[in-house]
Amino acid sequence: MLRGILPPLVTPFHPDGALDLASFEANLESYAAEDLAGYVVLGSNGEAASLEEDEKLTLLRAARRRAGARLVIAGTGLESTRATIAFTAKAADTGADAALVLTPCVFKSQMTLDALRRHYEAVAEGSPISVVLYSFPAVTGLAFPPGLAAAVAGHPRIVGLKESSGDVGLLGRIVASVPASFSVACGSAPVFYPSLCVGAMAGILAVANCAPRPVAALYRAFSSADHARARRIQEVLTPLAVAVTATHGVAGLKAAVDLSGRRGGSVRAPLLPVAPAVRDELRRLLDAAESAAKA
Amino acid sequence: MLRGILPPLVTPFHPDGALDLASFEANLESYAAEDLAGYVVLGSNGEAASLEEDEKLTLLRAARRRAGARLVIAGTGLESTRATIAFTAKAADTGADAALVLTPCVFKSQMTLDALRRHYEAVAEGSPISVVLYSFPAVTGLAFPPGLAAAVAGHPRIVGLKESSGDVGLLGRIVASVPASFSVACGSAPVFYPSLCVGAMAGILAVANCAPRPVAALYRAFSSADHARARRIQEVLTPLAVAVTATHGVAGLKAAVDLSGRRGGSVRAPLLPVAPAVRDELRRLLDAAESAAKA
Amino acid sequence: MLRGILPPLVTPFHPDGALDLASFEANLESYAAEDLAGYVVLGSNGEAASLEEDEKLTLLRAARRRAGARLVIAGTGLESTRATIAFTAKAADTGADAALVLTPCVFKSQMTLDALRRHYEAVAEGSPISVVLYSFPAVTGLAFPPGLAAAVAGHPRIVGLKESSGDVGLLGRIVASVPASFSVACGSAPVFYPSLCVGAMAGILAVANCAPRPVAALYRAFSSADHARARRIQEVLTPLAVAVTATHGVAGLKAAVDLSGRRGGSVRAPLLPVAPAVRDELRRLLDAAESAAKA
Amino acid sequence: MLRGILPPLVTPFHPDGALDLASFEANLESYAAEDLAGYVVLGSNGEAASLEEDEKLTLLRAARRRAGARLVIAGTGLESTRATIAFTAKAADTGADAALVLTPCVFKSQMTLDALRRHYEAVAEGSPISVVLYSFPAVTGLAFPPGLAAAVAGHPRIVGLKESSGDVGLLGRIVASVPASFSVACGSAPVFYPSLCVGAMAGILAVANCAPRPVAALYRAFSSADHARARRIQEVLTPLAVAVTATHGVAGLKAAVDLSGRRGGSVRAPLLPVAPAVRDELRRLLDAAESAAKA
Repeated sequence: MLRGILPPLVTPFHPDGALDLASFEANLESYAAEDLAGYVVLGSNGEAASLEEDEKLTLLRAARRRAGARLVIAGTGLESTRATIAFTAKAADTGADAALVLTPCVFKSQMTLDALRRHYEAVAEGSPISVVLYSFPAVTGLAFPPGLAAAVAGHPRIVGLKESSGDVGLLGRIVASVPASFSVACGSAPVFYPSLCVGAMAGILAVANCAPRPVAALYRAFSSADHARARRIQEVLTPLAVAVTATHGVAGLKAAVDLSGRRGGSVRAPLLPVAPAVRDELRRLLDAAESAAKA
Repeated sequence: MLRGILPPLVTPFHPDGALDLASFEANLESYAAEDLAGYVVLGSNGEAASLEEDEKLTLLRAARRRAGARLVIAGTGLESTRATIAFTAKAADTGADAALVLTPCVFKSQMTLDALRRHYEAVAEGSPISVVLYSFPAVTGLAFPPGLAAAVAGHPRIVGLKESSGDVGLLGRIVASVPASFSVACGSAPVFYPSLCVGAMAGILAVANCAPRPVAALYRAFSSADHARARRIQEVLTPLAVAVTATHGVAGLKAAVDLSGRRGGSVRAPLLPVAPAVRDELRRLLDAAESAAKA
Repeated sequence: MLRGILPPLVTPFHPDGALDLASFEANLESYAAEDLAGYVVLGSNGEAASLEEDEKLTLLRAARRRAGARLVIAGTGLESTRATIAFTAKAADTGADAALVLTPCVFKSQMTLDALRRHYEAVAEGSPISVVLYSFPAVTGLAFPPGLAAAVAGHPRIVGLKESSGDVGLLGRIVASVPASFSVACGSAPVFYPSLCVGAMAGILAVANCAPRPVAALYRAFSSADHARARRIQEVLTPLAVAVTATHGVAGLKAAVDLSGRRGGSVRAPLLPVAPAVRDELRRLLDAAESAAKA
Repeated sequence: MLRGILPPLVTPFHPDGALDLASFEANLESYAAEDLAGYVVLGSNGEAASLEEDEKLTLLRAARRRAGARLVIAGTGLESTRATIAFTAKAADTGADAALVLTPCVFKSQMTLDALRRHYEAVAEGSPISVVLYSFPAVTGLAFPPGLAAAVAGHPRIVGLKESSGDVGLLGRIVASVPASFSVACGSAPVFYPSLCVGAMAGILAVANCAPRPVAALYRAFSSADHARARRIQEVLTPLAVAVTATHGVAGLKAAVDLSGRRGGSVRAPLLPVAPAVRDELRRLLDAAESAAKA
């Protein structure tokens, strides 16, 4: 089910912090022309943790309307199992195809393999739609327990995992531990190509918001066994990906979305906008990525 | 303003996960007889991240009704500045005396001193009540930027900090960097006595839910300069405190509250209940702490 | 210069802890029949930190005698620059072709890019033979400063880097930052295949002590663009590699060398021998790896 | 046995890196007038990892000659058990009173409680002199296993522990776990006073090289139950201690030793000298500490 490129969409805000739905929809219109498999709405880089529930549902409905036959995956993970189940049901009502469920993370030392297994199974039991696990240690401070994917992969509604740690060895071990029906998506753009090499089937990559064409080109190059081209695109994609995530964060990503001719909009505090000089750096990196995709 | 012992209250749930308000109120009634300065409602160990807003307000109102002249401090920190401001206003409407505001933590690499300073100043500007900073790296994965307390201590509504890292050196440096009007509360029971030695003025300690008497006795011993007694109580309090936080988590804390003759109740999933054998261990540790307080 | 597979040789000891040179030489004889490019002597897994200087030189001379035309790379990194220079000269006198120089690591906070750059340049200046940087954070506690490889790659005697963190993204960024004359060797077997994909040119892998054939088969598969086969071998090699490094350490590696028909010998304390049950696990993993290489 | 203040002596070098024994001896002469219990020679901050064995023995003999009735404790920990035993015997021959044995740390994942217990018991069995455990996670990357001190405290030659993590809670738990005959020394100056409060009996503090008087004054204030004075001195000592360890490292410490009228000398590469501006900062911090001790 998880195949190809799915940008985890940014959520544009007006300068006063209000939701900028028109920009969100304009971005979806722009992405329609790109080689994408679908969209993740309400991912970490979509500032889901800073959105109210009504805003979240508004975004999901808008994505559904504009996505056509493409997948809409909704980020529905909340700290408690019951709240996650309740919100997943609401997301399903908007027409989302699947729920992406971040690991709970407040009580890290208690998030044992057993606790997480029960959490995901309860969410899957209560969910009308498919469930995708989501591990993002940079956000949660929680390492993914190696055996978790295999432990829940047998559930008919648990269909995959987004792995965002950047640890290709871990990703490979997970792929090797699950049946072919369970897809692992790479969530860390600097290791997208090597992750594909060890069995990732999809890319849910923040950088695809501002550079969908290079990301899709890398994926196509890999799919057609053109390893040399995939590696070349990876090399120029990496600095851009690092800049719009680890270095400059969501504000950097939104600036790059603006620079790519789309509408990133403002961030919500406590995030701060990037300094003007960052835009010059991002433009250079964007240009390099686009050139590599065309070459 | 922050002086003495304030338990960060557990939130009892029924076995089906529903809020057990009667137990919460019964606990407050029991605490009325103890030597406490007030209560923190909606702290991390109160499972605030697993509560809905209406539940939160219900708990705050109940605490206000039962607290009499004692302080009620509301945990109001949310990921976005705007949501924190909005909820702080609602908490103030319930009669809470102050807001305890956990550092935002989703985008750790972006939570610079500047971003956090602006966050706290904006929350304080928008708040009708006093604001207390809250650093809890085991939950947030975020180290407290050493200069932040001094940077915001000048704001008339920012009155203190709860420091829960257990790093006594850091706590001492913070105390030394702020005016006397800014109080630092210790949030890590295993270092309560040494934290008082370097200038902490209060203890907001999970273990005070199940052992308010030993915690208060330690504080009184320190206040009357009886260091030998304070150290003795600390030594028996530490194993209990570690058991009900790091080792067994909130489920362990709630079991200990039950064993102390109060009502801990169930946890919300994904937390799991403790194994039966843990209760025996907790009972021994509780008894030892009570004995030390009496000796 | 760094191309292909070079096992970082274990150092067999007698049960009383004395150096077992005969076993070391027997192993070299056994490796002569394998598809290897050379040997690393005195690597971390060679227990270099537990060897005296005279033992080190004895091992180097033995390796030189038995290596024929193959490369002999000597681990010569010590904490101080001057000691590293002095020992590198002695290693060169034994006929070693290159020196593998682990980052100094006692004073981690002082090991800035500048300090490390000067260290490596001074070692290279003083060395009669080629120098290879060596980063192994699990041993040193020191992350590799991203710009270091590029900063020193221009020195005519600094020819490469062994990167043992397992971070494929980092390895890829390093490869992209250096001239083609500077080789990056992968030092983490669970990511050997994806590391080759992003530009590693060699594997210096502990697991090659006990499973040289599967490691060499993976490398040949990659070199002949047979990605499917390389990935298949990687998948069975990974559990073995994890077992003989992270899980069971050098004692596990030596037990696996014994089981492979070579002579691992004893470890030096404080390392402890593995429990007997571990041997059964290792045998299974070895068999699986050999089968994959033959398939 | 471990009581009072013992500076872990810096090792002065000439600008060319050669050992500057005359400066080392001049420092000992200067310390004779201070209120110190003894000296640690070959500690981490003594750059022991950058010294040759003959240099180490020269330093120990010089310390013994100049120490009079004061304790001389020799840092003798090496990676292997056998090398540690051998060097401890040589240190004992120079007249050292005790051996300070840093935890081995190359193979961190294998340094279990059991492995470390056997290591320390073997060293103690082979040692003619008393043995003191030494935990310094910032150098070793190894957390101290909580039960280790209690596990070895029964050995007649294992008399104490230097705890340098700065974790006062851990130090307190260790003190509570061992008999009174086993002394815990604080190795982290920013928490010296609170560590004394929870039972540390000594201070082995780098900052005592440049500020022996304030450190001794803090210790005397605590010993005479003058907590207010101890805390005041701690507050001014902390910034100096942080500057000469975490911030500027051994080079900063040596610069401060110079500024205090003693002879710090040069560092050995890969350490770099401090920038000139650092000396101004250090002078201010030194003056503040001296003033606090006099007040």
